Amino acid sequence: MTQKINLSEKLKKIENYWDPRIVGQLNGQHVKLARFKGTFDWHKHDQEDEMFLVLEGSFKLELQEKSLHLEAGEMVIVPRGAFHRPRAEQEACVLLFEPVSTRNTGDMRNERTIDNPEDI
Amino acid sequence: MTQKINLSEKLKKIENYWDPRIVGQLNGQHVKLARFKGTFDWHKHDQEDEMFLVLEGSFKLELQEKSLHLEAGEMVIVPRGAFHRPRAEQEACVLLFEPVSTRNTGDMRNERTIDNPEDI
Repeated sequence: MTQKINLSEKLKKIENYWDPRIVGQLNGQHVKLARFKGTFDWHKHDQEDEMFLVLEGSFKLELQEKSLHLEAGEMVIVPRGAFHRPRAEQEACVLLFEPVSTRNTGDMRNERTIDNPEDI
Repeated sequence: MTQKINLSEKLKKIENYWDPRIVGQLNGQHVKLARFKGTFDWHKHDQEDEMFLVLEGSFKLELQEKSLHLEAGEMVIVPRGAFHRPRAEQEACVLLFEPVSTRNTGDMRNERTIDNPEDI
């Protein structure tokens, strides 16, 4: 059923950092929400471009060649194959748009890997 | 080159209503921005699901079975094949995610049809 999704309300239900949750699916892509705080792991996605849109707060996206500081209302598209690492000194709330096949830690597998993110 | 995109700055460059502009592309999908005001035309997209995320203002999305009032921070995914019509009493700024093949007026063709939306 077609229904509206309030992103702030969804974010309140996410308890943990680096725990992306699915809020929508279309055309083989997932729309996810995640709360970032701290430093994630360097990784890349060989088959998937990944979009980050900051909803609240800010974070730094480290790339191999530079680092981008992203604030609320700003987005970036990381092309497939590009190593990246998100870092957030304070909490950031982020919307992600990426293929349903995308694993949060990309080519890495560690204790933060979530193979089947849950809906929220 | 991977660069950040400030959505407010991009929106300022859009002069006309119902004139979606491309701000990014990933995985065969476009990220577009548009300013809505007034009443658009009823249409559907036979092959494309379409996502609307309100950035500023609010608008009403009319569907065949109901009408959704969407405010800033709210989104909806219209499944392929579903007739819909956006209406905005006041201006609304909206982010769209949809396949690159998506035509703004869907199965309709009229003076509002934009076959090749421009980057901004």
